[in-house]
This record gives sequence, structure tokens and C-alpha cells, in this order.
Amino acid sequence: MAARVSYELGTSNAVPIEIRNGRIILIDQRKIPDALEHVDATELEEMCFAIKHMIVRGAPAIGAAGALALAFEAVRLAGAGLSREQFFSDLRRAGTLLQATRPTAVNLSWDTNLVLNLAERLHDSEEPLDRLAEKLMECARSISEGYVESCRQIGMNGAPLVGQTASILTHCNAGALACCGWGTALGVIRAACFRGSDVTVYVDETRPRQQGSRLTAWELVADGITPVLITESMSGYFMSRGKIDLVVTGADRIATNGDAANKIGTYSLAVLAQAHGVPFYIAAPLSTIDPDITSGEQIPIEERDSSEVTMINGAWICPREVTVINPAFDVTPARLITGIITEAGVLRPPYTESIPRALSSRSLPV
Amino acid sequence: MAARVSYELGTSNAVPIEIRNGRIILIDQRKIPDALEHVDATELEEMCFAIKHMIVRGAPAIGAAGALALAFEAVRLAGAGLSREQFFSDLRRAGTLLQATRPTAVNLSWDTNLVLNLAERLHDSEEPLDRLAEKLMECARSISEGYVESCRQIGMNGAPLVGQTASILTHCNAGALACCGWGTALGVIRAACFRGSDVTVYVDETRPRQQGSRLTAWELVADGITPVLITESMSGYFMSRGKIDLVVTGADRIATNGDAANKIGTYSLAVLAQAHGVPFYIAAPLSTIDPDITSGEQIPIEERDSSEVTMINGAWICPREVTVINPAFDVTPARLITGIITEAGVLRPPYTESIPRALSSRSLPV
Repeated sequence: MAARVSYELGTSNAVPIEIRNGRIILIDQRKIPDALEHVDATELEEMCFAIKHMIVRGAPAIGAAGALALAFEAVRLAGAGLSREQFFSDLRRAGTLLQATRPTAVNLSWDTNLVLNLAERLHDSEEPLDRLAEKLMECARSISEGYVESCRQIGMNGAPLVGQTASILTHCNAGALACCGWGTALGVIRAACFRGSDVTVYVDETRPRQQGSRLTAWELVADGITPVLITESMSGYFMSRGKIDLVVTGADRIATNGDAANKIGTYSLAVLAQAHGVPFYIAAPLSTIDPDITSGEQIPIEERDSSEVTMINGAWICPREVTVINPAFDVTPARLITGIITEAGVLRPPYTESIPRALSSRSLPV
Repeated sequence: MAARVSYELGTSNAVPIEIRNGRIILIDQRKIPDALEHVDATELEEMCFAIKHMIVRGAPAIGAAGALALAFEAVRLAGAGLSREQFFSDLRRAGTLLQATRPTAVNLSWDTNLVLNLAERLHDSEEPLDRLAEKLMECARSISEGYVESCRQIGMNGAPLVGQTASILTHCNAGALACCGWGTALGVIRAACFRGSDVTVYVDETRPRQQGSRLTAWELVADGITPVLITESMSGYFMSRGKIDLVVTGADRIATNGDAANKIGTYSLAVLAQAHGVPFYIAAPLSTIDPDITSGEQIPIEERDSSEVTMINGAWICPREVTVINPAFDVTPARLITGIITEAGVLRPPYTESIPRALSSRSLPV
């Protein structure tokens, strides 16, 4: 099918986080595709709630949102007539609160730490608090803009992996809503369309939260790419029938050995892909790589509320008496990953060599 | 957990098909677990509707239901003052209508053919039509009773494969609702509990129709076995953490080489099980083996309505514009199946030897 990814290269109509009239405005991703509603999450508590309850989600997007929230909090604190010590103490506490909202994606702590570390570097300077807060705001804005640029570059780096005619399976949502700009996995798909590939996109529903059927399908439809919606139970079937040429997903945290945490179900897809000789790619910015973690076993896996599994649209889909374990993520071991598509190029095994090389070359936004 | 599988050995409280006051009464399986409602499906058209729309489902249950519907139709036709030729012509047409409702499970055509073949053998006899119809009714009743007995035997044959303490993953519903009596896969689990095993049962939700979360979980809760409900996306995760000791599912049609069609998602589970060294069993009566089919590639795969994927509880879970392909079954190749648990024992590879041996030993109900 001919897609009309016709808007400006690297951008998308779906902007998960915006600053409007001095407020942080989020798309309420819980409502899509039923409604496109926005919420104001300018106050720290509002943003903590929004991240925890997945009004905003996706590793890069919550990183950008957390950094912005922290900068807005700095501006508020700077205007509150606090002592310098109290300002810093309150700002650190805000960072801790934000970082505690979701444990698995590294971008949230990485991006908020960029803001906090800049603040600490200015701690002993002569910089008055209002000027200091302005600098934090510039830093936070540059993080969002950085994701737009990395996603564009990830897309362009990944597009050559997609054939002239190709069927691509993706899981969860690693699109504009998750990442700003083009998205990571969807960035690859969009860039492939942009370059003229004729793609068919198979979208996993992605139970329990259905980010595939709700968010990814919505983004693709808006782009003129009609997705084939499947349930997770069907992925092996379509691979066995030769319907899938490659799998590409995002990631929430990547260890330096290449193990990658992503939405629950990604690991099963990678096992299935290997069993069928289908290439399996992760698309993620370098900031998703956690330099402090050397193996996937060290990545904390968030467990979420059982109601995500037992209810859909507010209605029970099982007896009340069941037990539920609801891990939100799983870890795909490096041996199952054909390549990691980053803004610095496609990293290949052995990742213990390619990842440190890429990390040492990255330019930090601050 | 200590289960209380305390009712009579081999039976269950959930009886999918009953004859009450000369009517065929079905549990409406679409309503479980929200409500336990029954529907009258005595008329041929009602039963065709009930099978097609999965008011009654599960390979053995639709076989038994189809056979009963055909016998009831024979009684009706016998009382309608038709010529012998017209009676037979109408009866054959009824068989064709029933068999066309669902193509994948072999039991439906097998069991209705048992009734039709008995009728044909009596075609040239002196037997008056009302007596002939009575004999068909006896035949149909013996089919349901046969499933209760085979499920009990399947359970007892499979139970020794379950350790004293074991975690078992099952998919879809191969329980009492699907099979009469104990069920096939759930028969194995029930028999293991009956023998004193301490089992934890992981139940796949089984999108799109959610037979796992709705039906299997409901049956297990009624038995005092609290299931762990998971989404399909989680099965690989729990296997990788060593949480699953064995997988057991039912089947809708088995080729003579051991390839087994079952609910979509079964194939992915079998691939995952092999990747993790977890034994993968099929539990099914011998009548699920189709002697005319030598390979899974010959098994017709039913495609069902897209609304099963796009809607849950009547509400959309995706944009209206998506494309859907909704295969209701997939085929697990024999090489991934550790054993096929039947009433004649556990068949082992090579199935091209064990299956013909078992088939030649089976006693037909008529």
C-alpha cells in the first residue's frame, strides 16, 4: 500500500508533550483512539500521576516529560523565595519523586539526572535561582528536541534494513507518542515509507494495555499506512507462513551486553523470530543504553496492577477470584537481537564491543 | 494450593450440553463468567447458530452437540409423515448444514457421520422411521457419554506426567465446557489434583475470544484451583524464569503424522516450550485424530469475523480503519509435541507409528 508519510521529515502529527502558554500539556494516551484529549500536567504531582498512570508513556517520552516537569518545578521553586539550600533540597526531592514513578525505562532517570546534574554544577556558582532555573528549562527543552532528532536519525539508519516490499511486525508503541518526533520502531517504518518502500505493518495488540491496537494502529492510520492488527497469539502463525520479513520494536533499557528490556511479549517475539529465521531489531536512542548495567538480569522489571489484566474498558474479562502477576516488561537476551538501530548507526553483535564504542562517541545534550 | 476436585471421578459441575424434558439445553458459553445462562438449541437452525457463534464450543462438545442435534432432527422428521427417501434426503441435508458450521475441529464431522452412517446402514432395513430415529438417538447419547469416559481416562493417563508439585500452563479451554466430563487438558490437571499433586495452573487469556480467562479460569475456580491468569505476551517470560514445568492443551484435529491443530497461539507456545526445554503435551480423544489427513498442512484453518479482534465486550479497542486477519487455529508440528495424551495412553514420537497403532485399537461407539 502507498503510504503518505508526507509531513516534514522526522516529525509527526502526534505530539505527546507540548508547552503551551507556559503549561505542560500532554496527550492523554489512555483515551486514544477513542478520543484525542489533552491534560495539563504542569504541577509536579500531576506529572507524577501522568507518568505512573501512563497518560504519557514510552521510554523517551517519559524521559522528556520528567525533565520538563523538573525544570518547571525549578522555575516554581525559584519564585517561592526559598533559600538556595532549600531550593536544591526541594529540587532533588522532586527528582526522586519523578524517578520513582516507573522503574524500568532508564530514560526517565537519565533525563531527569541531566537536569539535576546541571543544577548541581551551578550550585556553587553566583547564578541567581531564576537564571539557574531558566538554564534547566533550556536543558529540558533540548532533551525533547534531541529525541526528535535521534528518532529521525534512527529512522534513516534503520530504513535500509527494510526491503523495497516488506512486512514488518511491531509490538507495543514505539512511535511518536512514545518518543517525540517519528518514534523509534515506527521511525524505521516511517523512514522506509519515506524512502519509497511498500510496507505492510503487522501490529501486535499488546495485552494487557493494548498499546499496539490503540496507539500504534492510530499513528499508522493517521500516516495512511493501514496496519494489520493481530493478537499476540497470532505472531508465530504469521511467521510460520512466511508473512513477516522483520520484527522491530523499541526498548526501555538496554544493558551494555545488548540485553534489552521492552514491553512484555517482546521476548516471546524474539524467540519466535529466531525460530523462523526472521531478523529481530531493537530501535532506540543511545540514551536507552544504561552504562551502569552489564546484563539484562540487573534490569528492574516493573509489576503493574492486576486490573490491567483482569479488566478491559472497565469490564471484567475473568472471574474475580483469579491470581494475577503482571510484569510490564521482559528482557530479550542479546543473542536474539539481530541489531540495535540507534542514531549512531546500527549496532551489531558482539554488543560488548559495539555498544561501548557507540557510547564513547555520543555527545551529551548538556 | 490444595484443590478440592471432590466431585465424582471424571465428572464436572459444568455440563455444556444436557437433554431436559426432551429438549437440548446448552450453557451459553459466551456469557461465562458473567452469568451462567442456558439456551434451548433443539431445532436444527438453533444448533447451527449455537455452534457457529460459539454458544457451544470445543472440539468434543461440538461433536456431541452436532450428533444430538442430528438425532433430534431424525425424530422430528420421522414424525412428519415423510417418505423414506425424503426422510433420508432431509437427514443428510441436516448433516451437511451442521458440518458446515465450523471447519477445523474434526469431531463435528466425525460424530455427525457416526449418526449418518448408522442411518445409512439401516436405510434398506425393515426398521420403521420412528424406531430408526430412536436408534440414532441412542447413538448420539453414547457419543456424549463416550467423551465423559475418554476424558476421565485421558486425565488418568496424563496425571503421572505431572509432578507432585507442578506448574502447568494451558491455553484456551479444553475443560468440561469444551469436552463433557472432565475435559482433556483440564482432565489431566484435575486427575493430577485428584491424585494429590499440588498444582499451580497458569491460564493464557487466549485472545481474541478469551476462552482462557473466561472459561478455563471459571472452571478452575469452581474446582477450588485458583488459576494464575496471564496474557499470551507473558508465556515466554514465565518460561524463561523457570515458572512452567509443562504445557498441556487440547486439540481440534490431529493429522496421522502427529501435527495438531488447536486454538491460535498454541503453536507459539510450543515453540517457546521447546526453546525452554519445557515438555509440551496435547490431550485429546482418539476421535480428534483424522485418519484421512496425513499432515497438518491439510487441516483447514477457520478464519473468523474481524470483530473478535477489534472489539471486546462490544467496545472497539482500535481505530476503525485497521485490517484484520483472524485465523481461529494454528497447527503445531509433531516435532514440537512431547506426547499426545489419549484415552488409549500417551502416544509418543514417532507418531507415524504410535498413531496408526492407537487408531487400529480403538473401538468405535457404533
